Amino acid sequence: MGARGSVATTAITGLLALRAGLVRPFGCVTERLEMDHSVLPTWDEIIVGGHDIVSIPLDKRAEHLAESGLIPHSVFTAVASGLRAVDAELRCGYHPVSHTGSLADAAARLAADITEFRDRHELARVIVVNVTSTEPPVPQLPEHLDIDLLTESLNDPQRTVLPPSSVGAYAALTAGCPYVDFTPSPGIKMPALTELARRQGLPYAGADGKTGETLLRTVLAPMFVARALNVRSWAGTNLLGGGDGANLADPEQAKGKLESKARGLASLIGDVTAPLHIDNVPDLAERKIAWDYVSFEGFLGAKMSLQFTWDGYDSALAAPLVLDLTRLVSAAHAKGLSGALSELAFFFKDPLGTDEHRFAEQTRMLADWAAGL
Amino acid sequence: MGARGSVATTAITGLLALRAGLVRPFGCVTERLEMDHSVLPTWDEIIVGGHDIVSIPLDKRAEHLAESGLIPHSVFTAVASGLRAVDAELRCGYHPVSHTGSLADAAARLAADITEFRDRHELARVIVVNVTSTEPPVPQLPEHLDIDLLTESLNDPQRTVLPPSSVGAYAALTAGCPYVDFTPSPGIKMPALTELARRQGLPYAGADGKTGETLLRTVLAPMFVARALNVRSWAGTNLLGGGDGANLADPEQAKGKLESKARGLASLIGDVTAPLHIDNVPDLAERKIAWDYVSFEGFLGAKMSLQFTWDGYDSALAAPLVLDLTRLVSAAHAKGLSGALSELAFFFKDPLGTDEHRFAEQTRMLADWAAGL
Amino acid sequence: MGARGSVATTAITGLLALRAGLVRPFGCVTERLEMDHSVLPTWDEIIVGGHDIVSIPLDKRAEHLAESGLIPHSVFTAVASGLRAVDAELRCGYHPVSHTGSLADAAARLAADITEFRDRHELARVIVVNVTSTEPPVPQLPEHLDIDLLTESLNDPQRTVLPPSSVGAYAALTAGCPYVDFTPSPGIKMPALTELARRQGLPYAGADGKTGETLLRTVLAPMFVARALNVRSWAGTNLLGGGDGANLADPEQAKGKLESKARGLASLIGDVTAPLHIDNVPDLAERKIAWDYVSFEGFLGAKMSLQFTWDGYDSALAAPLVLDLTRLVSAAHAKGLSGALSELAFFFKDPLGTDEHRFAEQTRMLADWAAGL
Amino acid sequence: MGARGSVATTAITGLLALRAGLVRPFGCVTERLEMDHSVLPTWDEIIVGGHDIVSIPLDKRAEHLAESGLIPHSVFTAVASGLRAVDAELRCGYHPVSHTGSLADAAARLAADITEFRDRHELARVIVVNVTSTEPPVPQLPEHLDIDLLTESLNDPQRTVLPPSSVGAYAALTAGCPYVDFTPSPGIKMPALTELARRQGLPYAGADGKTGETLLRTVLAPMFVARALNVRSWAGTNLLGGGDGANLADPEQAKGKLESKARGLASLIGDVTAPLHIDNVPDLAERKIAWDYVSFEGFLGAKMSLQFTWDGYDSALAAPLVLDLTRLVSAAHAKGLSGALSELAFFFKDPLGTDEHRFAEQTRMLADWAAGL
Repeated sequence: MGARGSVATTAITGLLALRAGLVRPFGCVTERLEMDHSVLPTWDEIIVGGHDIVSIPLDKRAEHLAESGLIPHSVFTAVASGLRAVDAELRCGYHPVSHTGSLADAAARLAADITEFRDRHELARVIVVNVTSTEPPVPQLPEHLDIDLLTESLNDPQRTVLPPSSVGAYAALTAGCPYVDFTPSPGIKMPALTELARRQGLPYAGADGKTGETLLRTVLAPMFVARALNVRSWAGTNLLGGGDGANLADPEQAKGKLESKARGLASLIGDVTAPLHIDNVPDLAERKIAWDYVSFEGFLGAKMSLQFTWDGYDSALAAPLVLDLTRLVSAAHAKGLSGALSELAFFFKDPLGTDEHRFAEQTRMLADWAAGL
Repeated sequence: MGARGSVATTAITGLLALRAGLVRPFGCVTERLEMDHSVLPTWDEIIVGGHDIVSIPLDKRAEHLAESGLIPHSVFTAVASGLRAVDAELRCGYHPVSHTGSLADAAARLAADITEFRDRHELARVIVVNVTSTEPPVPQLPEHLDIDLLTESLNDPQRTVLPPSSVGAYAALTAGCPYVDFTPSPGIKMPALTELARRQGLPYAGADGKTGETLLRTVLAPMFVARALNVRSWAGTNLLGGGDGANLADPEQAKGKLESKARGLASLIGDVTAPLHIDNVPDLAERKIAWDYVSFEGFLGAKMSLQFTWDGYDSALAAPLVLDLTRLVSAAHAKGLSGALSELAFFFKDPLGTDEHRFAEQTRMLADWAAGL
Repeated sequence: MGARGSVATTAITGLLALRAGLVRPFGCVTERLEMDHSVLPTWDEIIVGGHDIVSIPLDKRAEHLAESGLIPHSVFTAVASGLRAVDAELRCGYHPVSHTGSLADAAARLAADITEFRDRHELARVIVVNVTSTEPPVPQLPEHLDIDLLTESLNDPQRTVLPPSSVGAYAALTAGCPYVDFTPSPGIKMPALTELARRQGLPYAGADGKTGETLLRTVLAPMFVARALNVRSWAGTNLLGGGDGANLADPEQAKGKLESKARGLASLIGDVTAPLHIDNVPDLAERKIAWDYVSFEGFLGAKMSLQFTWDGYDSALAAPLVLDLTRLVSAAHAKGLSGALSELAFFFKDPLGTDEHRFAEQTRMLADWAAGL
Repeated sequence: MGARGSVATTAITGLLALRAGLVRPFGCVTERLEMDHSVLPTWDEIIVGGHDIVSIPLDKRAEHLAESGLIPHSVFTAVASGLRAVDAELRCGYHPVSHTGSLADAAARLAADITEFRDRHELARVIVVNVTSTEPPVPQLPEHLDIDLLTESLNDPQRTVLPPSSVGAYAALTAGCPYVDFTPSPGIKMPALTELARRQGLPYAGADGKTGETLLRTVLAPMFVARALNVRSWAGTNLLGGGDGANLADPEQAKGKLESKARGLASLIGDVTAPLHIDNVPDLAERKIAWDYVSFEGFLGAKMSLQFTWDGYDSALAAPLVLDLTRLVSAAHAKGLSGALSELAFFFKDPLGTDEHRFAEQTRMLADWAAGL
């Protein structure tokens, strides 16, 4: 879902480049995990399909990313025809404005696309990963709490009880597919949908890929705790270009992301003053700059500070994790695991199934879990 | 050892303030460890003695630190008489220039001071902590490898086979005291002295307290590894005021510290370009500013960076660890443990007895060990 | 006006310390200007009075500032009795909530206080400086454009046509006093009041003291222009503690300040993406941290950046400028100058009487003007 | 001189791109100066020749710079054939190791190349710009003080009284060409050669292009002075990749550059603690990162700081200045000016003919001078 966005385009370009041996697998966690690698699909075994509501072809998107410095020109040239082949597999996503009919119709169409793709390629399974634009939180409805009530409501063409990300999750689950939420959108995060996953015996993972500022926070905050240093405030500013910046500059859209970031920090160091901003700075294009200023108190009340600036390509940080999650969730599904894969907290800002935000603990949880697959 | 330096003065001031309930124990790790706290000496039970080669009294040193912003004025006022009482317990340290006679004589005098202090206060044990100025590395001599050969050489008044920090370690061990090396000086780090510790059945810990840049490096480097990001270079600059700055501005003196920092980084991420500087900036007084710039490569070779600035009071970071180490090594001695206490790696840049530099792993090692005491 | 705030307390403490020869005049621009210094009042000749709506005495405020590290303890101790003497000169300010009667009554009372102070001390003149908390912008009324209409409205006890800062400016002008606006509040910035100044033959200066981020912007932006570098975006974050932080965390209150900052940047480099935040971070106390990230384009479109972090004590930066302005405006008044003193743009974010924001040009304007006094 | 280095390659690529209207003239100061533009050669009128001791062709160098992100791929493709045409104009430079014969022979050969180039293209004049690698300072010889003595010594094949940059300057002057020193190498900076320029009636300018850290220092330092803030220390670290990094990592080679930087700072704020480092960090390729930490004291001794990080492409900053200098020195020569062009201080770290380091003053000097051309 969101197959022509920056993250998906980067992931697909990278997958093709890895297959062709053009690049080293930097950022791919599964390549360095000590585990039985035979349980993971190889780069060659992963076949890409997807949905999107935009129609700019993948190779055009990749060309644009190459101009912004995110994808090397030589790689783009080498995989351009491969990208066109993948683009032929992409189908039109669900868009609430243009859609007519019930949400059940919409979900059935998405599920049918997935099933057709799986059958045509004779795939063992399809992992659905949500990398669409962030949606704002939605008010809770009774239908979100009860799968049967939800199913009934979906049939009513007058009602729109689910946001697009959750329609996608519903479709994935009804098509028998594991689901990964790489965004802070509502997606699968409602009791009705997690119950549906349970009934279908499907694993899922999320939410909100941890790629920059939050990654650092979950690495650094435990240090202050371990050293008994008293964090007084933790201020943050994020400068984003690209579509993500434009989307998150809208306070309503950004709400979910800001909430998921704040929850993480509070769970690590408790309630401290923590102003946080996301600004749209279009000239940064695919880059994301995060500045954090941490003010803390040590022995005898000494006032000290730590500040950092992170300068990253968000999609270059996210894309290999999307491939990793596809591989790991695929292996989990093959092993018959179902429900929230809490051991994948390592990848997420707002991990489903656990409250563990400390990165080192998450690293260990992942390593142990992967070793046992 | 070094009882009138900044670290010792801060630790003693803080101890008196903690006893009086004037401050909260920020920075004191033992206060938050989940363990049987009854095995640790309380703040009241810790009696301070020491050696130093300078004679400026502790309360003058503390007053100076109060002016630099490190110690609150109200705290200084409240503990000034207590500092004068501690100062009366301090004895003249060993100084190679003014000393006449053999090193054995010097060590015997130091050991006698310690024994007299222990007897007079009817103490269960004395923990000797080295917080003197950093010494440069010394060329290895055959005597450093063999305790019997060493003992013989010490009696020769014509020879100086040990640097002052190692004379102190020798004296501590012969007086039956556990020893903690909070500096990168040679100290106990030679086979002859670790063999002496073994023969005496004494525990020891070190080396080089981890309080700033290296602390952050051991927290951040494992993140890059866990995320399969390819660190290309890690540059660092340290600006130091105080006596430490003046001492470490001398490249010869700084050599040990720079080596211990470089070893740690290499063990975490392998050999990368890692220029590192220590500059003396007197106007910073007790503050230490560290700037690190990490250049790394992600998916598809995307070039990214992380930079941080750490602005800390070095002594405020070190002093509570000196108290923690005193308590933990005291508990270890009481339990009959001997040899290198590798589980205390958490506290050190260059941990003795282990190659584990990852801070999160060190935190877990400490927690498990303390819980078992 | 605002005589017991942080800026005023620091300025008064500093004035007493300068008189007593306790400190060097760092930050005092008049001390280094090449001019006829005999036209400036000496530290001894400046007698301090003032208004405030809070009643915490000056010496208590100064003690608090000493605890936050802004004022040295030894200085506080030396000037405490002097501060109490100044405090006895302070009078109750105008507060719209508690005031009964017309605004004309309020202004008359303030003016009478000033006149009484001037007469009692046999002063040549009184310079009124506004250092009260920032007020939000006010909607323009017809009365703001016409002094006669304004005077009439002030007599109507049912109407409140002026915000407190402008009531103060009105009172100062009617008492025959030059007026300095050190804040972004409405103050004298309306045609009716500048007309009043003209009629009274009084000089005035403002607005909004330039002490941190904006100072740097007006220094750095001209460099990009001079070098033909194409600034694409200039993002800024300000972390403030103290009362200023609490006040400016309210978006309504901050509006005036944000607008004045944005105007300055736009006048220097044109319209670029320039997100700007002011956050309240109470633990910073009197410190202010500003982080700016400038993204720019050079030859062949090369993408480059400059970022800076400013860590300052806002009141320590503002206070000496308040003394400088008092001296310079006093000299201007003595010379018979009237109207907006545009040559004092050097001191302000939003200079009255000129659009010159380039710091180097402002420095030259000030130097030339002062040399001619 | 140094026509195949990064700076020259970027300048030539940019010149071809400007001629073709492919890029906007960012970084080109002459494009925005208010002056009679008809006195400047147009982009079309500038014909490029040069010397270098390396033989990698210009288009290969440019391709390499395109890979590092400095030159856009589309620009490289468009000008590649133009670069090959320029490369055909380049001649072998003087190399002390491979040269046999006297320095006079070497200089005569260089001068003959220049004359042949000027005649063949029927050029009004040739401006010689030194953009070779930085050379270390040389001990002063009596020959450096006296042009007649120097001329005599140059004929002695047994003696090498000039470093290569000065041989080049000598050749340029004897060929009747104005000379620009864009490096800190000895070049024209000796009385014998400036006397030669005087005798030949030729203008010259230098030295050491101001493109990053020093640019900022000359912008920021005057602010501290103007505001009477007491700078206590100004520490700097430079991380450089590319050939420049490798060259300057050698302390001997870096000496000239460090000295020229230190002189500039001292002339602006006097003698303060100012540690300065240049580190070779190859993975940064053409980028240069500079971090400066300025510690200063304000009113009542308040301790404050400013730090900045500059992230630039050094050649993208230098190249347009090389074009600007070529145009301006050409116009100066056409007007008959001779001697040190001190009004070009704006461009240099160590300006010849003036001690003015304040950037704003230099900007004004340049503007006034250019307006008068």
